[in-house]
Amino acid sequence: MAQAIYPRVAIIGCGLIGSSLLRAVQANGAAGELVAYDGSAEVRARVRDLAIADRVAETTQEAVADADLVIFAVPVMAMGQAAADAAPALKAGATVSDVGSVKAAVSEALMAAVPDSVFVVPGHPIAGTEQSGPDAGFAELFHNRWTILTPLAREDEPYLDAVQQLCDFWTALGSRVERMDDRHHDLVLAVTSHLPHLIAYNIVGTAADLEEVTQAEVMKFSAGGFRDFTRIAASDPTMWRDVFLTNKDAVLEILGRFTEDLQALSRAIRWGDGDKLFDLFSRTREIRRGVIQAGQESAEPNFGRDRR
Amino acid sequence: MAQAIYPRVAIIGCGLIGSSLLRAVQANGAAGELVAYDGSAEVRARVRDLAIADRVAETTQEAVADADLVIFAVPVMAMGQAAADAAPALKAGATVSDVGSVKAAVSEALMAAVPDSVFVVPGHPIAGTEQSGPDAGFAELFHNRWTILTPLAREDEPYLDAVQQLCDFWTALGSRVERMDDRHHDLVLAVTSHLPHLIAYNIVGTAADLEEVTQAEVMKFSAGGFRDFTRIAASDPTMWRDVFLTNKDAVLEILGRFTEDLQALSRAIRWGDGDKLFDLFSRTREIRRGVIQAGQESAEPNFGRDRR
Repeated sequence: MAQAIYPRVAIIGCGLIGSSLLRAVQANGAAGELVAYDGSAEVRARVRDLAIADRVAETTQEAVADADLVIFAVPVMAMGQAAADAAPALKAGATVSDVGSVKAAVSEALMAAVPDSVFVVPGHPIAGTEQSGPDAGFAELFHNRWTILTPLAREDEPYLDAVQQLCDFWTALGSRVERMDDRHHDLVLAVTSHLPHLIAYNIVGTAADLEEVTQAEVMKFSAGGFRDFTRIAASDPTMWRDVFLTNKDAVLEILGRFTEDLQALSRAIRWGDGDKLFDLFSRTREIRRGVIQAGQESAEPNFGRDRR
Repeated sequence: MAQAIYPRVAIIGCGLIGSSLLRAVQANGAAGELVAYDGSAEVRARVRDLAIADRVAETTQEAVADADLVIFAVPVMAMGQAAADAAPALKAGATVSDVGSVKAAVSEALMAAVPDSVFVVPGHPIAGTEQSGPDAGFAELFHNRWTILTPLAREDEPYLDAVQQLCDFWTALGSRVERMDDRHHDLVLAVTSHLPHLIAYNIVGTAADLEEVTQAEVMKFSAGGFRDFTRIAASDPTMWRDVFLTNKDAVLEILGRFTEDLQALSRAIRWGDGDKLFDLFSRTREIRRGVIQAGQESAEPNFGRDRR
């Protein structure tokens, strides 16, 4: 067992990501003591049964008392309230982080809620599956995945040390760590994650509403590409509603580009411009090679893995 | 080894699907003799090296001479020419089929090219990967996948027998078989396959053209959803150009619906209508359950499998 990175870690929220964090911290001995809390009594009971924390607290304040690292793993729009609930019990010098898919809005919400005596270091592990809840988590979720930290614009030594310690923590869980400006994070993720989810939700919705093709047919013959979209569109509705509401500007900007490009493609189909289609389809093939070379494929594919 | 369904089978075109067919026919003993042809001398040499046919012919006519079943496995817009090349050598009473992703246009092209003495039974196995070429094929590609046959509107006994024999052939390769009207096939596939590919190509193209986010970043952080799209957008450019050009009406119709729905979603994001987003995201989750129940997931997932 490796040496603990923090004497005491508290995880607030025990869904897919929170419960994976609990399991990963346990598996890697990254905390001296591991405390869990979830707003749902049912989830708390389940976490106790699963025995994936040393202790399950009955309130947020009980969970974060004396914790050296507190990670909020709740939907993006619930972060502010969760942090406000925790605030009175946070230890001076503790690090406060999160796992939200949007960073600028969450950073603001955390900063507004917690006292100046703690170090706020927002974070986002780019890992997940379309499953939800404490039973969906697994210890290897973060293995070889990137975790992006978006530290505040602070250069004081104690803060930089807190950031480094959080890097070490994620590294101990098997993750690769990158630091980034929070607004840039939100733009990058709007492209690589938020728009893909929006498109997947939309196409599955469109297919469900057709009159000429039955839902049974759509499901039966989904192997030609559609099936991949249904998996993405099965992701947690609350989490994704919050993502689109809190990363609105970046998502609408990228969506605007996407729509423009799609109109051009539609026109190429209408006018039978095969060369234009062929050019794009050849170009995108090159990008796939880049993705494979970037090591996203050789890494264990977590996202979208069907774990049934 | 099962009994041969046809004494002699000729496969014209030895890419991913054609070479998989060769391997599957060989593995299941579905043909007494198996003859292959490809327009490229390099591919013909490779098929000889792979030893996945009893014989590799040097011309289309040599390949189809005396064949009881001829399957064209070339891009959709090359079907007509391939069939015309074969026509003079086709045996009376032979069955002529194909594997194209579009059926109405291919059916027309085949009918125009071949003599009345053969039975045209267009077909489409809904199976594939994003790989191409004779090395990409594998014998199990069609296992538990649907093959759709779109027979002509003919009710005479010899024709119906030919259709049944082709059903038996695909069943022998491990496929499930469904019969469908060709125009309906084209609409169903526009939803479940053609639009998903178009969207994937488009989003990958959009991401490649951004100035604020580098391609390296897009590749590095692609695990959040984008990666799945890059895999689909790595599919064969010629094949997909032909699909969009020959199934134009159905694709544009479905694309119109998709775009309308996307605009509504965009508006919901702009105005912060969380309920609308949540409703859609919950509804699409239900559809995923249907896809899983329809057995597409328990079946070996061929499409998009990364075989490296």
